[in-house]
Amino acid sequence: MAEHRKRGSKGPLIMIGGGEDKEGDRTILREVVKHLDGGRLVIATVASHEPEGYFEAYERAFAELGVTDLVELYVKDRAETLDPKKLGLLDSAAGVFFSGGDQLRISSQIGDTPIEQRVREIHERGGLLAGTSAGASVMSETMLVKGTSGESYKIGDLHMAPGLGLVRNMIIDQHFAERGRFGRLFGAVAHNPRELGIGIDEDTALVFKDDCFDVIGSGCVYVVDGAGVTHSNIAEAEPERALSMFDVRLHVLSAGDTFDVSKRRPTEVPDVTKSHAIETQTMG
Amino acid sequence: MAEHRKRGSKGPLIMIGGGEDKEGDRTILREVVKHLDGGRLVIATVASHEPEGYFEAYERAFAELGVTDLVELYVKDRAETLDPKKLGLLDSAAGVFFSGGDQLRISSQIGDTPIEQRVREIHERGGLLAGTSAGASVMSETMLVKGTSGESYKIGDLHMAPGLGLVRNMIIDQHFAERGRFGRLFGAVAHNPRELGIGIDEDTALVFKDDCFDVIGSGCVYVVDGAGVTHSNIAEAEPERALSMFDVRLHVLSAGDTFDVSKRRPTEVPDVTKSHAIETQTMG
Repeated sequence: MAEHRKRGSKGPLIMIGGGEDKEGDRTILREVVKHLDGGRLVIATVASHEPEGYFEAYERAFAELGVTDLVELYVKDRAETLDPKKLGLLDSAAGVFFSGGDQLRISSQIGDTPIEQRVREIHERGGLLAGTSAGASVMSETMLVKGTSGESYKIGDLHMAPGLGLVRNMIIDQHFAERGRFGRLFGAVAHNPRELGIGIDEDTALVFKDDCFDVIGSGCVYVVDGAGVTHSNIAEAEPERALSMFDVRLHVLSAGDTFDVSKRRPTEVPDVTKSHAIETQTMG
Repeated sequence: MAEHRKRGSKGPLIMIGGGEDKEGDRTILREVVKHLDGGRLVIATVASHEPEGYFEAYERAFAELGVTDLVELYVKDRAETLDPKKLGLLDSAAGVFFSGGDQLRISSQIGDTPIEQRVREIHERGGLLAGTSAGASVMSETMLVKGTSGESYKIGDLHMAPGLGLVRNMIIDQHFAERGRFGRLFGAVAHNPRELGIGIDEDTALVFKDDCFDVIGSGCVYVVDGAGVTHSNIAEAEPERALSMFDVRLHVLSAGDTFDVSKRRPTEVPDVTKSHAIETQTMG
């Protein structure tokens, strides 16, 4: 993967679908390390109601990858976000990694606080922000908070809230195929097809930079594009009624694939001649 | 729904995603009854390794809906498909209902036997064929036999086999959102985008007739159309590698929606008045 850090531009965002490998190849954690340039990594365990244990697991995994300056940032409540010692942990950090838990804890505890401001500054000056599970979801402008897994979307069955807004036009979901979350992501996209639905499998991540992302890890990233939808019942149907939505465009991406969010296209597009030949052939 | 039975044309096929309601509204079983015109319904429990109990559950459910002539057809092995008594059960049947279990048991036990021939004749002369779960999957020309649920598709991880071939260009999957089977259906479609992938939720069915179908029940039917796919790695990637497939078209259908298989299009372009009427009706 090309070196992402450029002077004067925002740093990379690594959004992980949860369950990233911590003992084997650790493809995703290695990617995190690559962007630190030997600097400090802050593990933000804010998403967790009970942070004990999270930090230790990452400490082991990152130590073996050569990260020596690793610190934990936890805030029990908003008052603690003013604590100079907590804020000091972020000074000169090369990156922040948000662990899993409840995305609403991240947004409600650090939203519009000095902690969030420092995190944003790290991003602005080119530092790395990574997040797994809840830590990935929270990067959206409007984030998915809660919705049923393992069934189709029923009208009204979804909670969304303002996230940290680090990326626009993307709603992130995680543990995606493993927890059967297609239904709720279709539902989210139906609400406003401007937003691309991004479903990230476990042990899979997207590395986002300059409005494009690369996929890494063992599973898939699904991009649900509702821009061409010709009909949906989301605004008119009764609560509990199953969703109806025609002409969704969907991309199944895996390691090595890249996607341009502003163009809403996989960037490795087969050339036109070739793609036409493919269609003719399969339709023949 | 319009009366489907027409002189000289093939009968309707009702494909059910499993877990159809047997005690409440029984929307799907009522639809089955509607097509019998008071005639005999044969419950074919062939898909099951242990048929005990299946028939009794349907007997109760259908009795309360006014079906009086209900018989069970089970064959332990292929030799029994020649048994005149078994064959006699199908004489003058108005419909056959395949219960759930293992689709490979249906195809391997009755494929190319006099039983299958009788079933086909019932269909040809306008009678009803219905199937739930395995009984729905087996209606495909090439049927999905086995593949992992609850994860994305990995190259090579899918078993397909010749089904009864009652419908063409459709690969049927069931218990769809409930068991997280999106991944394997995308994989199936990637093999040959000529086939539409049809994923049917539990307590949901499609009523197929003259190459079109209507959706009934409480969940969704997903149509995965790979005709416009511009790239997939299915033929070239290593086994166990995650699928990559760009530009899939997907339709999320629910009760009241209809689909034209030959045109590969939802047939109801939204008409506000009508769609409202349908919703009112299905929502009771």
